[in-house]
Amino acid sequence: MFMTRSEYDRGVNTFSPEGRLFQVEYAIEAIKLGSTAIGVKTKDAVVLGVEKRLTSPLMESHSVEKLFEIDSHIGCAISGLTADARTIIEHARVQTQNHRFTYDEPQGIESTTQSICDLALRFGEGEDGEERIMSRPFGVALLIAGIDEHGPQLYHSEPSGTYFRYEAKAIGSGSEPAKSELVKEFHKDMTLEEAEVLILKVLRQVMEEKLDSKNVQLAKVTAEGGFHIYNDEEMADAVAREQQRMD
Amino acid sequence: MFMTRSEYDRGVNTFSPEGRLFQVEYAIEAIKLGSTAIGVKTKDAVVLGVEKRLTSPLMESHSVEKLFEIDSHIGCAISGLTADARTIIEHARVQTQNHRFTYDEPQGIESTTQSICDLALRFGEGEDGEERIMSRPFGVALLIAGIDEHGPQLYHSEPSGTYFRYEAKAIGSGSEPAKSELVKEFHKDMTLEEAEVLILKVLRQVMEEKLDSKNVQLAKVTAEGGFHIYNDEEMADAVAREQQRMD
Amino acid sequence: MFMTRSEYDRGVNTFSPEGRLFQVEYAIEAIKLGSTAIGVKTKDAVVLGVEKRLTSPLMESHSVEKLFEIDSHIGCAISGLTADARTIIEHARVQTQNHRFTYDEPQGIESTTQSICDLALRFGEGEDGEERIMSRPFGVALLIAGIDEHGPQLYHSEPSGTYFRYEAKAIGSGSEPAKSELVKEFHKDMTLEEAEVLILKVLRQVMEEKLDSKNVQLAKVTAEGGFHIYNDEEMADAVAREQQRMD
Amino acid sequence: MFMTRSEYDRGVNTFSPEGRLFQVEYAIEAIKLGSTAIGVKTKDAVVLGVEKRLTSPLMESHSVEKLFEIDSHIGCAISGLTADARTIIEHARVQTQNHRFTYDEPQGIESTTQSICDLALRFGEGEDGEERIMSRPFGVALLIAGIDEHGPQLYHSEPSGTYFRYEAKAIGSGSEPAKSELVKEFHKDMTLEEAEVLILKVLRQVMEEKLDSKNVQLAKVTAEGGFHIYNDEEMADAVAREQQRMD
Amino acid sequence: MFMTRSEYDRGVNTFSPEGRLFQVEYAIEAIKLGSTAIGVKTKDAVVLGVEKRLTSPLMESHSVEKLFEIDSHIGCAISGLTADARTIIEHARVQTQNHRFTYDEPQGIESTTQSICDLALRFGEGEDGEERIMSRPFGVALLIAGIDEHGPQLYHSEPSGTYFRYEAKAIGSGSEPAKSELVKEFHKDMTLEEAEVLILKVLRQVMEEKLDSKNVQLAKVTAEGGFHIYNDEEMADAVAREQQRMD
Amino acid sequence: MFMTRSEYDRGVNTFSPEGRLFQVEYAIEAIKLGSTAIGVKTKDAVVLGVEKRLTSPLMESHSVEKLFEIDSHIGCAISGLTADARTIIEHARVQTQNHRFTYDEPQGIESTTQSICDLALRFGEGEDGEERIMSRPFGVALLIAGIDEHGPQLYHSEPSGTYFRYEAKAIGSGSEPAKSELVKEFHKDMTLEEAEVLILKVLRQVMEEKLDSKNVQLAKVTAEGGFHIYNDEEMADAVAREQQRMD
Amino acid sequence: MFMTRSEYDRGVNTFSPEGRLFQVEYAIEAIKLGSTAIGVKTKDAVVLGVEKRLTSPLMESHSVEKLFEIDSHIGCAISGLTADARTIIEHARVQTQNHRFTYDEPQGIESTTQSICDLALRFGEGEDGEERIMSRPFGVALLIAGIDEHGPQLYHSEPSGTYFRYEAKAIGSGSEPAKSELVKEFHKDMTLEEAEVLILKVLRQVMEEKLDSKNVQLAKVTAEGGFHIYNDEEMADAVAREQQRMD
Repeated sequence: MFMTRSEYDRGVNTFSPEGRLFQVEYAIEAIKLGSTAIGVKTKDAVVLGVEKRLTSPLMESHSVEKLFEIDSHIGCAISGLTADARTIIEHARVQTQNHRFTYDEPQGIESTTQSICDLALRFGEGEDGEERIMSRPFGVALLIAGIDEHGPQLYHSEPSGTYFRYEAKAIGSGSEPAKSELVKEFHKDMTLEEAEVLILKVLRQVMEEKLDSKNVQLAKVTAEGGFHIYNDEEMADAVAREQQRMD
Repeated sequence: MFMTRSEYDRGVNTFSPEGRLFQVEYAIEAIKLGSTAIGVKTKDAVVLGVEKRLTSPLMESHSVEKLFEIDSHIGCAISGLTADARTIIEHARVQTQNHRFTYDEPQGIESTTQSICDLALRFGEGEDGEERIMSRPFGVALLIAGIDEHGPQLYHSEPSGTYFRYEAKAIGSGSEPAKSELVKEFHKDMTLEEAEVLILKVLRQVMEEKLDSKNVQLAKVTAEGGFHIYNDEEMADAVAREQQRMD
Repeated sequence: MFMTRSEYDRGVNTFSPEGRLFQVEYAIEAIKLGSTAIGVKTKDAVVLGVEKRLTSPLMESHSVEKLFEIDSHIGCAISGLTADARTIIEHARVQTQNHRFTYDEPQGIESTTQSICDLALRFGEGEDGEERIMSRPFGVALLIAGIDEHGPQLYHSEPSGTYFRYEAKAIGSGSEPAKSELVKEFHKDMTLEEAEVLILKVLRQVMEEKLDSKNVQLAKVTAEGGFHIYNDEEMADAVAREQQRMD
Repeated sequence: MFMTRSEYDRGVNTFSPEGRLFQVEYAIEAIKLGSTAIGVKTKDAVVLGVEKRLTSPLMESHSVEKLFEIDSHIGCAISGLTADARTIIEHARVQTQNHRFTYDEPQGIESTTQSICDLALRFGEGEDGEERIMSRPFGVALLIAGIDEHGPQLYHSEPSGTYFRYEAKAIGSGSEPAKSELVKEFHKDMTLEEAEVLILKVLRQVMEEKLDSKNVQLAKVTAEGGFHIYNDEEMADAVAREQQRMD
Repeated sequence: MFMTRSEYDRGVNTFSPEGRLFQVEYAIEAIKLGSTAIGVKTKDAVVLGVEKRLTSPLMESHSVEKLFEIDSHIGCAISGLTADARTIIEHARVQTQNHRFTYDEPQGIESTTQSICDLALRFGEGEDGEERIMSRPFGVALLIAGIDEHGPQLYHSEPSGTYFRYEAKAIGSGSEPAKSELVKEFHKDMTLEEAEVLILKVLRQVMEEKLDSKNVQLAKVTAEGGFHIYNDEEMADAVAREQQRMD
Repeated sequence: MFMTRSEYDRGVNTFSPEGRLFQVEYAIEAIKLGSTAIGVKTKDAVVLGVEKRLTSPLMESHSVEKLFEIDSHIGCAISGLTADARTIIEHARVQTQNHRFTYDEPQGIESTTQSICDLALRFGEGEDGEERIMSRPFGVALLIAGIDEHGPQLYHSEPSGTYFRYEAKAIGSGSEPAKSELVKEFHKDMTLEEAEVLILKVLRQVMEEKLDSKNVQLAKVTAEGGFHIYNDEEMADAVAREQQRMD
Repeated sequence: MFMTRSEYDRGVNTFSPEGRLFQVEYAIEAIKLGSTAIGVKTKDAVVLGVEKRLTSPLMESHSVEKLFEIDSHIGCAISGLTADARTIIEHARVQTQNHRFTYDEPQGIESTTQSICDLALRFGEGEDGEERIMSRPFGVALLIAGIDEHGPQLYHSEPSGTYFRYEAKAIGSGSEPAKSELVKEFHKDMTLEEAEVLILKVLRQVMEEKLDSKNVQLAKVTAEGGFHIYNDEEMADAVAREQQRMD
């Protein structure tokens, strides 16, 4: 019997003959089916932008959540399985609160990211004390934006439990064209407003629906304001500004 | 040996190469075999309507339950496996009572919905303290209708553990034509009576049996009356009103 | 490799691509191999009747039990695997006794039925405190007859954990022709005696063996007498009465 | 891939599409490979008779045990896997002793039989407190003979956990011809001696070896003597008596 | 897909459609690969004899152990997997010591044998309190020789957990011709010396290597001396005696 | 059915007929997909060098960590799955701190290495007290560099749990050509600067990207300075020195 | 479907139809891939010799360990998986220390060997109190050399948990020709020096690399010196002596 790669998928956590972990790679595929999310770092801030997929005109836009605050100085955009993301974010919120309680200071951005990735790595295991762990890899990727004593930072975490820091990054179904556009357009001296416009411009290019202030959402993290998700008014302003530039 | 998608179904909670969770998708299929349920939100209320499948003239209509009160301000319509629904609703009733006991106020509608979805996500796991968890996804979808300080709200929760807020929504075997009809007919200024008539009209179109006051049932949630399932008299009135409009 | 439905049967509790739970459906098949049982509700009583399969003239008729008292006001007829039925009935007896002990009143008929169905739903799970749970669905259906403050009631419970209330119902290998006959002959004003005769008449039509007072048995539940299984004399009388009508 | 019935055997306790439990049916096949055992009830007694397979002239006849006392008023004949029978009988002995200790009276015959069948039903489960439970069905059938306030009784218990009462019954490899003979020859007014002769006569017909007082054994249960396994002398007498009649 | 018997082997403890337990039957095959062992009972003693397979001239004969003392009045010869035998014998030694400690008398031979067989039956189970249990059948058969108030006894125990008493018995790769020879030559009035000679004569016939005092070993159990394994001198004497008779 | 080697991969820890452990061999393949790492021992120091794969110009070089300090006198370079490496290094850090706490002295280099390898060996097992253990082999190899009373030492540890000491060693996707180059160029009297240059020269030959001070990194361990990862300035110097030699 | 032997490998511990345990046989194959080890017993000592495979000229010879002290009077040579051997040796060291602590005397050589073999037998089981047990057979064979009140002894232990005593024995990839040579050359009156020379001579014949004092190593156990692994100087002497004889 000739075995194809499919044979290796059954054990959730076994190597293929080429040294690959297919369940982790398939979880990464789940993210490629997800809505697009983009992050851009500027000198003083990180801006996140997400696509909201409204599958019916009767669906309420506000109930489609793709941006989450973790702590007052850190938040994230998600792509992939929403229900998995809720588990990870709940975990991260508890972690950052514990850190504040224990050390009386906000948890660093890399430290928070690593804690999220350690959770990702442990699928297929039993319970770990208080937190629940999945029987499969988490099917979600995060763009984590935060600010600490090292300034604003943008991290990307994956189902494999690896993470890297980026100046600009896109995930989800539109990530390939979005990344090319970011490489072309990003520069280190961008202002926050330029970052907003860049994200909206890229989202407009990769989204199937026509972009409007209902089906996209932005968030930013700054030293003064911490993590902030744009309200309807701010979204309308931002979309209008981007629209102006286009003309 | 060439493996088709079927190979991936055996692990209840593993990704296919395309990043899909088939057991969850199959549970969603179970709902497409279920009876139709419809929800419509008005300014001051949410109305739910369900089809009752009476497989024999000797079956007693009242024993076919598709509408359930969760707390005095929140209830739901179900489609799919009735026995699974009983478990979920029992869970939600305990949750909302605990909330009242702990905080001395009714639990919010979104918070109740999220609690139901967290339960859905945990299939394939062991017991979680006091509540029992299934070894497969729950084969049931809910239309959750409630009213709290944010006004009347209608949520749809799925076996995948995702939920969204809607102005009007249909689930079950007749959901496809029903959703088209809702998009065409729903408007934000509907009165409660217009919502009743719309639901009955749509049910009449998608049901195989001829609609009468025995094989459908309505419920509503309002600020004054809380969640209320229509009795025989109220059902007869509503069906008569809908009949009048048709003529 | 092309997978047929058989592939999905191995996990005792997994969905097929069409959203079906095959192990539960197969358990329902087990009941179609079982002996026929019939229930008929009258204004003041419920009558149950069962076929007894005597596979040898040396088998003692009294040891073939298909009718069981659960509490003094409730009992049932079974079809399917006898040994599974014993477990369910033992569970129900403990439940109703606990209810009497805790609330000092008999448990309601629907409440008892739901407790039986909750047990059915939990196959494939570990132990639940004091009660033992099966590793497969229970291969037995019940016709539950009882009387409480809502009057006489007849419930049908299935391996899937669903239950409905009926005015008349048949289960087991002869259920299809029996149900047609019941629809034709049942009317709401039947007397208890007419119900007895109807049940025996239908059993006579669907049984392979010639009906006599040894290979069928009746039980009734009434406000005055509670649940009562007919003794040899009562059976002889009832069969004689039915015989008279036939002539 | 076309699946034959064999596919369903792997789960020890799952239904086939036709609603059958194959592992239980296969365990029943194990009994058809076993030595023949016969039970006959008379007005005042039950007589059991078994074939002893002596596979070598050097095997000692007394070490082939097919008849076992459970309590002073109850015993059994076995067919199938001897080692499985030892576990069941040990269980029954503990049960009847517990009953005597708790209630200060011998346990009833049906109650003892049901306790044995409850054990049979629980294969595939973990440990149940003090008693060990098998990971497969028990491959043994029992003819249980006892006497209590309801007089002498003969029960047959199977791997499926079902049991029935009989006036006369045969199990094991020779059961088919033996049962036909019992139907033909048994009558309710048999004396104990006639029952002995009938059993030996039937055994003689179905055994491959020529019957003698070494390769068969009898036991009886009577009000006066309780359960008693015949010694060498009693066996020689009984075989002589049967021989006389034959001539 | 047509399933051969091989399909049933995977569950260590499941029935085949014909009612057979293949893993147990395969364990019995393991014994047919083992070295030959023979036991012969006389009026006052039991004699055991074993073949020792010396696979290299550099292997030390004394380290090949096939005869073991269990208690001072009981011992055994083994055939099959040596490491499995060590576990069983260690278990039996603890049992017999416990019996002496509790009852202040040596444990009976049948009781000791049954304790060994109960252990054999429990493969595939978890731990049983203090003793470790195998995840497969034990691949070893024993000839158990002992003396108690019932006189000298010779038991044969198998991987299936069944045991019988014999006057003479052979196990292992040479058992078939050895058994024929024993049937022909054994008689009840043998002296101990005649039993020794018979065993050596049979071993000589079935062994591939030429028999000498290094590659066979004898043990005996007598009322006076208890269980005794022959030393080099005694072996030389016995082989010489057998040689004399041959000439 | 003819089985290829693939059949043996499913049990994470079973032998193939040739006596191989495929999951361990596949984990070693995972390392051949990893970035190249090189270690060179001199008389007074060990130098480690790693390739950093920057998959996007927007990825921040500093967040790609392939060199880790374990204790002040010991560190390592990794190749393979980064997330697995984090678990191993965290384990080693705890071990070395425990050793300092218990014995008031730094842990030896071989002892630390063996502790890492013991962890590697235990995949497929449950939890071991405080440390978490993987359900598959760790997909990472380490070059461990340290200095203790036996002088500077370089160890290589593999997923199989074996380790050896080397004078110079390369791992990862470029290891084959790198090892040939090391054999040719290494000599025992190298200075630390010569080792730096050798490592950079070999990395330049095996890397797909053009080497610069951003996509490689060095670390050294010396008696005076302990384990030290080069900062940006030191990297720029080292790359410049290597460049000079090349010209 | 025709099943080849491969089908039986999946359960780590199940019998094939011929009564074989394939996983144990495959573990023995793992040893045939290992480096050669040889043991020779003289009147007053046991000498062990091993091949060291240096896969790179940069690998340090001293880090290739194939000889281990267990206690001051006992040690071993290994062939097969080094990491498995570490577990076994650690187990044996703890055992012998416990024995000294409990009985105030060194543990006997056979007793130590049996303790190692009991560990080998228990693969596939859970944890046994303090010691960890493998989920597969140990892939390593040992030549155990020791001296106690019975004089010098050489044992060979296998993955199957069997052990035998030898006068001379070879294991590993070169064992077949080595054993033939030992049978030819070994005699009981060898001096320790002759044993050294014999081992080196045989190793020279079976090793692929040219033998020198770096790629072989010797150890001896004597009454005076206990277990002793030769240092570089002693190795150089021994190799020189063997070289002399050759010339």
